[in-house]
Amino acid sequence: MAHLLSTHCTMKLSTNAKVYANLPNHHPKALFTSLPVHTYKHPSKSLVFHKRKDPKHHVFDATAVPMSKEAETQIVSGSHQSSSGPSKPKKVMIIGGDGYCGWATALHLSNKNYEVCIVDSLVRRLFDHQLGLDSLTPIASIHDRIRRWKSLTGKTIQLYIGDICDFEFLSEAFKSFEPDSVVHFGEQRSAPYSMIDRSRAVFTQHNNVIGTLNVLFAIKEYQEECHLVKLGTMGEYGTPNIDIEEGYITITHNGRTDTLPYPKQASSFYHLSKVHDSHNIAFTCKAWGVRATDLNQGVVYGVRTDEMEMHEELCNRFDYDGVFGTALNRFCVQAAVGHPLTVYGKGGQTRGYLDIRDTVQCVELAIANPAKHGEFRVFNQFTEQFSVNDLSRLVTKAGKKLGLEVQTISVPNPRVEAEEHYYNAKHTKLVELGLQPHLLSDSLLDSLLNFAITYKDRVDKAQIMPSVSWKKIGAKPRTVTV
Amino acid sequence: MAHLLSTHCTMKLSTNAKVYANLPNHHPKALFTSLPVHTYKHPSKSLVFHKRKDPKHHVFDATAVPMSKEAETQIVSGSHQSSSGPSKPKKVMIIGGDGYCGWATALHLSNKNYEVCIVDSLVRRLFDHQLGLDSLTPIASIHDRIRRWKSLTGKTIQLYIGDICDFEFLSEAFKSFEPDSVVHFGEQRSAPYSMIDRSRAVFTQHNNVIGTLNVLFAIKEYQEECHLVKLGTMGEYGTPNIDIEEGYITITHNGRTDTLPYPKQASSFYHLSKVHDSHNIAFTCKAWGVRATDLNQGVVYGVRTDEMEMHEELCNRFDYDGVFGTALNRFCVQAAVGHPLTVYGKGGQTRGYLDIRDTVQCVELAIANPAKHGEFRVFNQFTEQFSVNDLSRLVTKAGKKLGLEVQTISVPNPRVEAEEHYYNAKHTKLVELGLQPHLLSDSLLDSLLNFAITYKDRVDKAQIMPSVSWKKIGAKPRTVTV
Repeated sequence: MAHLLSTHCTMKLSTNAKVYANLPNHHPKALFTSLPVHTYKHPSKSLVFHKRKDPKHHVFDATAVPMSKEAETQIVSGSHQSSSGPSKPKKVMIIGGDGYCGWATALHLSNKNYEVCIVDSLVRRLFDHQLGLDSLTPIASIHDRIRRWKSLTGKTIQLYIGDICDFEFLSEAFKSFEPDSVVHFGEQRSAPYSMIDRSRAVFTQHNNVIGTLNVLFAIKEYQEECHLVKLGTMGEYGTPNIDIEEGYITITHNGRTDTLPYPKQASSFYHLSKVHDSHNIAFTCKAWGVRATDLNQGVVYGVRTDEMEMHEELCNRFDYDGVFGTALNRFCVQAAVGHPLTVYGKGGQTRGYLDIRDTVQCVELAIANPAKHGEFRVFNQFTEQFSVNDLSRLVTKAGKKLGLEVQTISVPNPRVEAEEHYYNAKHTKLVELGLQPHLLSDSLLDSLLNFAITYKDRVDKAQIMPSVSWKKIGAKPRTVTV
Repeated sequence: MAHLLSTHCTMKLSTNAKVYANLPNHHPKALFTSLPVHTYKHPSKSLVFHKRKDPKHHVFDATAVPMSKEAETQIVSGSHQSSSGPSKPKKVMIIGGDGYCGWATALHLSNKNYEVCIVDSLVRRLFDHQLGLDSLTPIASIHDRIRRWKSLTGKTIQLYIGDICDFEFLSEAFKSFEPDSVVHFGEQRSAPYSMIDRSRAVFTQHNNVIGTLNVLFAIKEYQEECHLVKLGTMGEYGTPNIDIEEGYITITHNGRTDTLPYPKQASSFYHLSKVHDSHNIAFTCKAWGVRATDLNQGVVYGVRTDEMEMHEELCNRFDYDGVFGTALNRFCVQAAVGHPLTVYGKGGQTRGYLDIRDTVQCVELAIANPAKHGEFRVFNQFTEQFSVNDLSRLVTKAGKKLGLEVQTISVPNPRVEAEEHYYNAKHTKLVELGLQPHLLSDSLLDSLLNFAITYKDRVDKAQIMPSVSWKKIGAKPRTVTV
């Protein structure tokens, strides 16, 4: 099996980054013996360093190549390939592949034998430094993560480090990797972050809208057949007093009928940036024939996926703080450290939720069943609806089983949102494609709570309470925490 | 009347601009004698130059003051004031006040005795230079325009030259002027410009979205009671197969009812930028209590307003080229120079149109009847619907009366849009506030055609045909003309 563990690895590294060519040799033989194996030979490349012309970037393109004949990389045929025989694996570019959903998806798709590259500026890690936050879980660097994955499975995840708002960088990544699908997680994804101050609001909308525009232009210019799978949010719809459909609604008005984009009522500069993206993407599908799927995702919970279980260095991030932490994950940490569960206002806020194992499954389904040429397809990506009060009750009950005494307090709602409202959102399209949901069960809640307990010594209680107010956001730069 | 002609004038000038303190002395007495006159004294200011700290800007703040006791400025009470006696004139900041609609509005509101300031980066003039375009009419510099207005009427229009994407600049303008209303025309407003290449698409969305965000933050930070009057576009709605309402639509769906934002289907990066603005503004009305009116304007035609008639140096721009020219204005120029009228595709594209005299009237009505605290109000600002074929028939008929032989040709449609479609857009809210429309009449068309004939020697025929294709837009920078 030595050739499974070859060292082909193409990276774009920042000036100070190391280039790894020789990787530790592990033997995850058991993982693969039940799967059919076909040989796929990467085109040979030389080890090349060249400094880019633009002095702003200081980026080196480093290509580390197999050192011997043994270095042929094996690719295992996966579910995305026809059963009629070996075929070239589909290439998936995961923008934002170092983040919470992105990293889980990168591993899952690599494991499913897609050829994966990650494009990431790593700015999410910078946000933690700047705000004095940290993941509950210790997370390895993206370089170590990728090397570990390679050593465990023999699978290469290519890495392009850079900012997609820099079109020159994005172009090089597209021309070099030639993706069949782009999964775009690469946006500032926290509503509270976007509401800290003016500069963060502007950063969020600029970064998200311009980054997505650049991806659309890159597809048009370099990979017209490429399928864009874009992460949207259920928050684009807000909380209308009618059922939420999947992207479109058929309206009969004054005796005439049309099917139109579902009206959007987002309630943070972050959520608004996703609304802007959706409109921009829909236009390019119509004007240029781009094929796109907008995944309007609910609130994701959980941390473990099959791939993460392989090694602690693959562990995903887990946010519990008031800026990046989301409801259920945050509640589990609060229960684990004896902090009251913080319900914002009345707690009637109802949203769609899903397990991170379903996030990766949904993305895989979207890629495997691409949108048609010119189609702008919208899927509501969640599996169950809960109110915040529902979640606090569930966590309280699960905590009791583990001997934790869980209190709940209502804190003044830092957001501007309805606290009691109708909510009924459709989510059938991904189920029709084959999604098998992991519903929130007692045992999952037990394991999430146990997970939080394992890492409870790493919790900084000062980060738990909401620190960002929708109404108090000001024009002046603000330091949030510590 | 000497005190009517005082020289108070506050400007922000770029490094190379001159500062004018003594202005020519004209006597427009006849214009004012029929109006009641009240005296308003500007706070006295010293002549001050100081270079800003930021070395990027090289902007001088220059305040030119009245030189003598005579320099008290007279303000004539206008329709916006109560009849119970003299009151402080309302202050209106016109962002983009050097442009086609902005300049006409600035003069109109100044004439109606609002205290007006113009905020403009003058980048619209740069676009002409860069693309090799020019207005049909010769237009004076903004400095000359404002001096001429002052000399004719004694009225001061203050000038802040800078980019509203620069929040430091915008803050200074807000703090210095303290507007009661902001009329925001300050956006890149051409659909073809936004479709030239990637960098123009990105510029358009960045400039428009971030500029508007900054205006919202400036209102929140410095002038919470300030009413935002924002220029949107009828193009935000696209061409749905149902009636277009004014901003909102009441939908009954699965037995439940809600009134929601009207679905948006914009079809250029420019039109999309306005959709993004609308969503952002609606959110800040809800979250911060901003009071805003979105004027979804149709296609504006004409050039003359009452104020422009006073002096040729006040003349407005008139665009006929393929990038900035709009349908009816362009057809008149084509008829005047013997160029066939260029109908894009089948010519069934139907839109709302209005006379520029109604643009200024609508803005005045919106200001005089402000939105309530927290209200996001949407008016559809047009007076009549025409298809492109309707317009070509009208111009052909009007040309015949003037002895012009007018041909019409169909050119391949450079846009992606329906060429035959249902279109019925409501536009009653401004009429309810008192709008008295100037409908497109034979006599108006005669005068527009005669106007075009007057300037026909200035026409560059090479600029008439469409040069920007919705489908061919590429990632690489493109030089469009010449």
